[in-house]
Amino acid sequence: MQVSIIGASGYGGGELARLLSTHPHADVVQVVSETYRGRPLSAAFPGLARTKVGAIPCDGHDAAIRGDIVFLAVESGHAMRVAGALLDEGRRVIDLSADFRLRNSEAHRTFYKAEPAPEALRKRAVYGMPELDREPIRSARLVANPGCYVTASTLALAPLVRTGIVAREGIVIDAKSGVSGAGRSKSDTLFRYAEANESTRPYGVGGVHRHTPEIEQNLGAPVTFTPHLVPMTRGILATCYARLANGIRPEAVTATLASAYANEPFVVVRPEGDWPSTKDVAGSNLCQIAATVDVRTGTVVVCSVIDNLVKGAAGQAIQNMNLMCGFPETAGLEGGGIWP
Amino acid sequence: MQVSIIGASGYGGGELARLLSTHPHADVVQVVSETYRGRPLSAAFPGLARTKVGAIPCDGHDAAIRGDIVFLAVESGHAMRVAGALLDEGRRVIDLSADFRLRNSEAHRTFYKAEPAPEALRKRAVYGMPELDREPIRSARLVANPGCYVTASTLALAPLVRTGIVAREGIVIDAKSGVSGAGRSKSDTLFRYAEANESTRPYGVGGVHRHTPEIEQNLGAPVTFTPHLVPMTRGILATCYARLANGIRPEAVTATLASAYANEPFVVVRPEGDWPSTKDVAGSNLCQIAATVDVRTGTVVVCSVIDNLVKGAAGQAIQNMNLMCGFPETAGLEGGGIWP
Amino acid sequence: MQVSIIGASGYGGGELARLLSTHPHADVVQVVSETYRGRPLSAAFPGLARTKVGAIPCDGHDAAIRGDIVFLAVESGHAMRVAGALLDEGRRVIDLSADFRLRNSEAHRTFYKAEPAPEALRKRAVYGMPELDREPIRSARLVANPGCYVTASTLALAPLVRTGIVAREGIVIDAKSGVSGAGRSKSDTLFRYAEANESTRPYGVGGVHRHTPEIEQNLGAPVTFTPHLVPMTRGILATCYARLANGIRPEAVTATLASAYANEPFVVVRPEGDWPSTKDVAGSNLCQIAATVDVRTGTVVVCSVIDNLVKGAAGQAIQNMNLMCGFPETAGLEGGGIWP
Amino acid sequence: MQVSIIGASGYGGGELARLLSTHPHADVVQVVSETYRGRPLSAAFPGLARTKVGAIPCDGHDAAIRGDIVFLAVESGHAMRVAGALLDEGRRVIDLSADFRLRNSEAHRTFYKAEPAPEALRKRAVYGMPELDREPIRSARLVANPGCYVTASTLALAPLVRTGIVAREGIVIDAKSGVSGAGRSKSDTLFRYAEANESTRPYGVGGVHRHTPEIEQNLGAPVTFTPHLVPMTRGILATCYARLANGIRPEAVTATLASAYANEPFVVVRPEGDWPSTKDVAGSNLCQIAATVDVRTGTVVVCSVIDNLVKGAAGQAIQNMNLMCGFPETAGLEGGGIWP
Repeated sequence: MQVSIIGASGYGGGELARLLSTHPHADVVQVVSETYRGRPLSAAFPGLARTKVGAIPCDGHDAAIRGDIVFLAVESGHAMRVAGALLDEGRRVIDLSADFRLRNSEAHRTFYKAEPAPEALRKRAVYGMPELDREPIRSARLVANPGCYVTASTLALAPLVRTGIVAREGIVIDAKSGVSGAGRSKSDTLFRYAEANESTRPYGVGGVHRHTPEIEQNLGAPVTFTPHLVPMTRGILATCYARLANGIRPEAVTATLASAYANEPFVVVRPEGDWPSTKDVAGSNLCQIAATVDVRTGTVVVCSVIDNLVKGAAGQAIQNMNLMCGFPETAGLEGGGIWP
Repeated sequence: MQVSIIGASGYGGGELARLLSTHPHADVVQVVSETYRGRPLSAAFPGLARTKVGAIPCDGHDAAIRGDIVFLAVESGHAMRVAGALLDEGRRVIDLSADFRLRNSEAHRTFYKAEPAPEALRKRAVYGMPELDREPIRSARLVANPGCYVTASTLALAPLVRTGIVAREGIVIDAKSGVSGAGRSKSDTLFRYAEANESTRPYGVGGVHRHTPEIEQNLGAPVTFTPHLVPMTRGILATCYARLANGIRPEAVTATLASAYANEPFVVVRPEGDWPSTKDVAGSNLCQIAATVDVRTGTVVVCSVIDNLVKGAAGQAIQNMNLMCGFPETAGLEGGGIWP
Repeated sequence: MQVSIIGASGYGGGELARLLSTHPHADVVQVVSETYRGRPLSAAFPGLARTKVGAIPCDGHDAAIRGDIVFLAVESGHAMRVAGALLDEGRRVIDLSADFRLRNSEAHRTFYKAEPAPEALRKRAVYGMPELDREPIRSARLVANPGCYVTASTLALAPLVRTGIVAREGIVIDAKSGVSGAGRSKSDTLFRYAEANESTRPYGVGGVHRHTPEIEQNLGAPVTFTPHLVPMTRGILATCYARLANGIRPEAVTATLASAYANEPFVVVRPEGDWPSTKDVAGSNLCQIAATVDVRTGTVVVCSVIDNLVKGAAGQAIQNMNLMCGFPETAGLEGGGIWP
Repeated sequence: MQVSIIGASGYGGGELARLLSTHPHADVVQVVSETYRGRPLSAAFPGLARTKVGAIPCDGHDAAIRGDIVFLAVESGHAMRVAGALLDEGRRVIDLSADFRLRNSEAHRTFYKAEPAPEALRKRAVYGMPELDREPIRSARLVANPGCYVTASTLALAPLVRTGIVAREGIVIDAKSGVSGAGRSKSDTLFRYAEANESTRPYGVGGVHRHTPEIEQNLGAPVTFTPHLVPMTRGILATCYARLANGIRPEAVTATLASAYANEPFVVVRPEGDWPSTKDVAGSNLCQIAATVDVRTGTVVVCSVIDNLVKGAAGQAIQNMNLMCGFPETAGLEGGGIWP
């Protein structure tokens, strides 16, 4: 399978290149980066020196796309302009931006301050979180790859909301992210080392962060979502709070999660008390989850961790590609996490 | 005023020494550290080289205490054994441990897995959070200095709970702390650099952390409290969630906080949207707070930051000393935070 | 003494404000920052909330300067344009930029790629490293505050070169700096958190860094100087290598340093083997030094640490002000370092 | 090829497991860790959950060894006790400790304060740095895997010393390492997060670090070697200084390095000025090098970076295994580095 990566010099694009460099069935044949046009991709990612993908010269953004599979790893707003033509050429598209994630146009307008993709195009898109519903992904031509916070939050809560283990009202998600979540192109001072280091800060407080409606779409329940910036490069920890539903025993929480994910290759449910750390999943496509109940207050607490650039972006995109192409779902993603 | 610091080589003790080294009215005359017995305090804190307090040789733990004011900066369980005698000698005691914080003996037994201090001794202790109630501190002989998480959480929520702006049920506090909160003597691998770096993790999940009952005592309301370890040395951010009470306008939240703290020298209420970062208070005795309401879900979100070793420990202890001694409350604490 | 800080919202300017906020004899009456024009300085440095200096509204860059003492904490090239007029108005000027540091015009042109200050103005400037020569500073009207790397390197080596303990040829200085050394306005990607974190890198290799000629001017000897960026916010460690001069006993190295700095308030010479760490001086005006000899190769190794923003910039500038004004040299700088 | 990892729960052992988990020709059949005896290896490395190697229960240290290839990733002093028996059983051994690195017994005694391995056993060991001499490794039964600092330093300098491009006298190596270099079992306070963070420090100054004689053995020249601890988890940067030999043109430096490594799969020589950063090689087996000459002083400066746990330990060990087993040298090591 021949693969093109558009936006190859960003953090998400680079992670696609790193992971695909050892994929047994996919072959990166094209990398597009206006910034590095004409230079080998290893100029953007020195760690790719001596890999095949690292040696590929970057095409500019006006290049003809050649891949059978096209990963779009660029800012929201771009995919909706180019995906139609790519599909018409018979290519399959995996979009890492938010362009096709929300079914609700109004929510898109409200949270993204922009027009959503045309209805006809959006209808062709399949939401690509395999653990929620992998069947439609297998035959999809256009996949909307989920947001990073969304992935951690949804995997933590969806089985509990769906089964009624927790109440649908009063869900709080307090998420902590490494700074790479902001992307490579952001130059705000708060992403600078001297200001981000030794500093933890909330942002997008009060239900205004763009990932809020996507989480709500996945859960079918309203949430209060607060993202935070933590002084680390990678990783997301979502600490999720919900009310234990009436008549449910506390033991049911972990049991429900364990049962929901029993056959999932990338979701690990740990025993109560064995709390996961973002370092546990660095560099891997795993989501690790543990839960408990504060019986004093009847509050369920679920903690889930992912690597924001892997399961939260490039890794999940490759998992989607594997499904779309009939490869083993774990192909190219079997490597363990990097630790410490 | 002559001051003794017991436990001077720990993180809290060192911060007392640092802050008191330029205090206009207090004079450290004795530092006690068994580990550094016989060596100048600057052996434990090279940054105190060339300060008067740094040159003081450490007494062993069997030394006679000489200070009029005695700071106890040692593990919980010690103060309850020595405070009585110190008080009988006419000294005033500020205890940075948990020995005298909880009024409820049973809560102490449950959360600290240990017997509380004798009733008679506990009755002499005054809880030392000036913003809650500073009058009793002025005449106290024994002050229980609050916990670090407790300080950030209480200052964020107390005015809202007391005035009924938020409901008393369903409060969630998600707190993030730098690693120095664990103290200097902890050697668990999870405090080691290679494992703590690039890692955010929850711990004490499910309402079992020792600071839980102390927060509840201050608020008069149950809370679900979850602490997290974040890869930074100093700082606590408490993100607090509560339900906006019926009939209360969102604007009332920030207004209530601003009004409550209008005359407080160390609490800064920032406008909605101007979210504080732990770096904003590093090295200073400030608590900075901002709040908003997620109107979609009716959830109040209050974010407060402190330096866990200053307002969360040594700085607040000195603030208490100032009150006890009739000094200006800000004496020795006027310096701005260190940034970046 | 009334003080103006020009460039008050940069890292150096902010550190001046922090340190001067508790200075017993100096009073900041004016802060100039085009970026924060009209806003209180605490908008740029939230840690200065509730300090007097933090409440001062920033003047724009066209404001009339009012201070008796004027700190210029702006990019090189500015001071040479404004210093003359300030001096003519009777103000005393301390310039934290490089405009007046080099006596050799040609070196200035080579390393700064710019014309040096006019000869007449440069002649009025005194080089402000008190440990090298404090007498001229006392009567100076215009002080050139040394570079950060220069301070760490010079204090480590000057006594050894001057006394002939080490050879003048073959000196190597390998310096490691925290990222704040780049200043607040630099937006290069290599200063971004996600790229600077977990990364140590050299830059300006091969004798091309601007601080090279200034170190050589101080030592009177050629040096190979290599700066490195280390993932921390503050601090410089200079590891200096020189050949032990013929006939000199290894013990003479530490003895010479100890003797040279015996009466210096801000230089601590530690015993051989007690190696200093940058954390030991964070937030303080200290320079800590330790040395040894690799007797197998006859190489002297001297390690010195400073806080790049204090002894490497604002602290040393205040030390110079104290000398110029006849204040105690340590006024406002007595506080110990912040640790951990 | 069946593989046993002894010391599997240490940092080096875990990295072997991570890298071998996707090796095409080697199969980890046994992991030995007394600490995790009876528990799956993923208990020690949660990132290995869902990998085959992560599921293997750890044997205790008394288990019979089963692998054809045995990696010894334990403290120095152990391999010399067990290697003989393993060899006698027909197994091939790759020792990551220092037991067989030094040919000079006296140097071993001096720097390791311990008796070296028996002469007969040492004679069977081959030093395993393929770039120095890979032929003997192909037929080796016992390989001494090089030290981490040694690898970075040797690769930077060996071609220059061997060809006489630099003088053999006066070589200085200033190396900076992440904290994982200390190993997982070290509990000194200086490895704790709160004390290691925001701190750079030298140690083993003056030619006393254990890697000194190994570097000298590789170069055939005396060196002044100074290691430093830098606040990052992984990575080594060696900044190497040497005198340009008489009559050699500066251009010869990079040209010689480039020529020496032209066919090396894991050594990248970058153009002058394109300085490598430790992040460029994180997680990969690459060594990246760039050099220049300070023509003012005639000093050659070579900067080389490796991941201390990969090319500095586990990756190089696998490279050696590949050579010993006739596998492609890059098998299992093709993946690019992780960035950011």
